Amino acid sequence: MERLYLSKRGIEIEASPIRKLVPFAEEAKKRGIEVYHINIGQPDIPTPPFILDAMRAFSNPVLPYGPSQGLLELREAISEYFRRYGVEINPCEIFITTGGSEAIYFAFLTTMDAGDEVLIPEPYYTNYNGFANMAGVRIIPIPTDAAHGFHLPDEEVIEKLITPRTRAILICSPNNPTGTVYTEKEYERIKKIAEKHNLYIISDEVYREFIFNGTEPFSILKLDTEPERLIVIDSISKRFSACGARIGFIATKNRKILANVLKYGQARLCPPTIEQYGAIEGYKRLDEFLPEMIEEYKRRRDAAFEVIDKTPDIFALKPDGAFYAVLKLPIKDADHFARWLLSDFNVDGKTVMVAPARPFYRSENKGSDEVRIAYVLESHRMKEALQILVKGLYEYIKSGHRL
Amino acid sequence: MERLYLSKRGIEIEASPIRKLVPFAEEAKKRGIEVYHINIGQPDIPTPPFILDAMRAFSNPVLPYGPSQGLLELREAISEYFRRYGVEINPCEIFITTGGSEAIYFAFLTTMDAGDEVLIPEPYYTNYNGFANMAGVRIIPIPTDAAHGFHLPDEEVIEKLITPRTRAILICSPNNPTGTVYTEKEYERIKKIAEKHNLYIISDEVYREFIFNGTEPFSILKLDTEPERLIVIDSISKRFSACGARIGFIATKNRKILANVLKYGQARLCPPTIEQYGAIEGYKRLDEFLPEMIEEYKRRRDAAFEVIDKTPDIFALKPDGAFYAVLKLPIKDADHFARWLLSDFNVDGKTVMVAPARPFYRSENKGSDEVRIAYVLESHRMKEALQILVKGLYEYIKSGHRL
Repeated sequence: MERLYLSKRGIEIEASPIRKLVPFAEEAKKRGIEVYHINIGQPDIPTPPFILDAMRAFSNPVLPYGPSQGLLELREAISEYFRRYGVEINPCEIFITTGGSEAIYFAFLTTMDAGDEVLIPEPYYTNYNGFANMAGVRIIPIPTDAAHGFHLPDEEVIEKLITPRTRAILICSPNNPTGTVYTEKEYERIKKIAEKHNLYIISDEVYREFIFNGTEPFSILKLDTEPERLIVIDSISKRFSACGARIGFIATKNRKILANVLKYGQARLCPPTIEQYGAIEGYKRLDEFLPEMIEEYKRRRDAAFEVIDKTPDIFALKPDGAFYAVLKLPIKDADHFARWLLSDFNVDGKTVMVAPARPFYRSENKGSDEVRIAYVLESHRMKEALQILVKGLYEYIKSGHRL
Repeated sequence: MERLYLSKRGIEIEASPIRKLVPFAEEAKKRGIEVYHINIGQPDIPTPPFILDAMRAFSNPVLPYGPSQGLLELREAISEYFRRYGVEINPCEIFITTGGSEAIYFAFLTTMDAGDEVLIPEPYYTNYNGFANMAGVRIIPIPTDAAHGFHLPDEEVIEKLITPRTRAILICSPNNPTGTVYTEKEYERIKKIAEKHNLYIISDEVYREFIFNGTEPFSILKLDTEPERLIVIDSISKRFSACGARIGFIATKNRKILANVLKYGQARLCPPTIEQYGAIEGYKRLDEFLPEMIEEYKRRRDAAFEVIDKTPDIFALKPDGAFYAVLKLPIKDADHFARWLLSDFNVDGKTVMVAPARPFYRSENKGSDEVRIAYVLESHRMKEALQILVKGLYEYIKSGHRL
């Protein structure tokens, strides 16, 4: 049989680096090892019960197509939610998507054509690569580093990356994978560059409230620039601890973008119906669970950094937000280290799974000595996980793996 | 302010033609007119209650990310379901998608690159256009017509359309929008052409059981050809009357395609979790509701054709499946007619909404004298809707709109 065609893009798109180590973890578990999962952003915090109840309360005898742009009541609840941060956005400027994933993808499809470029500070959320592959757009990384807490470089460094094909800057603050929260000055810098070069600012704000340094949750919708330039992408996954709901949204005052997003939305018909009822309840009753959730993540971060800060061989500035941190380790190949932790190491039958940071970078030779951790375990378990990681690190080095 | 870039594809993708007339329907309703909706495939048949109950029974305290390929239990239930049709397909050869929509899109992404071509018999489901736009692939229409019941043309007609960029033939039987059910001979013809030109056969089988002529439900997975060539796309939307659930799947024995589909699936993380539990129940208890559902659609079709067959000015062969029919009318502009029915016509305060068939065709100048109807109303209402349509048609012609 002659070979059937396989798309080049299908061959080129990378397997999820976060899920790549899963077989090694499964092997470890088969050998009776307990694995502390600090490798993925799947929180163990219960979904607020009234959100699940609102889904269960769906009582229409038919589960029908909903509106392509999502239920009006949900868009109203989100509009109301933004008001607490001083942002006025109309329900008709909000488009409900199937997870934040689809929000990213629709933003790419409508602001760029194949071959166009988007600037993204690296390290960045690896799934952006998947959507760039689908949309045929190029991600141009803006360099940041651990030594500067992964904050943005100077204007000139960013401007040098701009070409006639650059259409947008995508930022994520609080950041996955670094936990970095951008300062007002950084937002101003992004704004200035976007204005000067006429670029969109696409802002992934799924961790908006996950801030531990006392500053107010922020949205780019507050920036003093042409509102047409600003596109927010968001999701309930982390905020409501409801990753499996697959509800996200796009918020923008750019009516042309909204009109084109709607056309893409119509092609896929509608986002899941039942989960939208849960989301409505979540936005309405945010104060009943979110402050405590943020406190809990703060405790977990502090528990992790209690160990990290005592370990001079690990370099990481304590991040101000999200629930991630990138740790710089005195090793050469963090991917190998992460596998080794699962296959060759344990402390009293326990080990830890981390995400090698290499895949969060686009630039060659970056991040190979870094891992990302997610503080998704209770404080005492988080602390123990880090202690295991540190022990593993020293044993790994001692056994000659450093170089 | 300088103009911000808008993607060409975002401008080019068409608004849903099915939803385009909605404002006219809303206007009519405001004037107190009752509108019979036979324009869209949103059934009024209740979702089997035990499917909704299974969703409500979700009792995990956290609503977490599920596996990117979908829950194993659902894939097992689908594997078991195929067995009733003599098809052996392993759960690992089934990939759960967010609606049939995503199944179509992932099939496009993995079998074709931008600029590649897929043959599709026209008229066809308009949303294929949306996914072709996203994937940058070209749809090449295979001509069919009302006079031949929208059955496939001869081999030579199809082969003439094949170029070096052709990668696949996409078929849909029972068909949306025509209701046509392909014969064994037609499947053989497709198979022969696909083998000769080394093409994939992508088969949209969401209406698999919706057959009224006594023939057995069919899947291309039964075709005697290299299994790698065959990709089934499917959805629970119609089969379980659960359009808002957004659960579909890809089934193929092509492991390379599955591996690449998985990578795209990982980028969007997972399909909605809760609805998968409903789907499991639906596949397990299919016999409790599907036979009666099919009978009900048959009654509705017969009710519609009782009127159509008595109207010599409407041409349509009674279709054997799905719940659609394309009617050829003695008018020039069915789009105008459909709008006119909503804005200028009623019978005792009632009118009917149909879908102009023009958008279901890619070829210029085709379908402008045709409408698609969906038999999604109970028989007596379906019959009444058709009677209103016929009255409207004659009044439309009488008032000089024919040409």
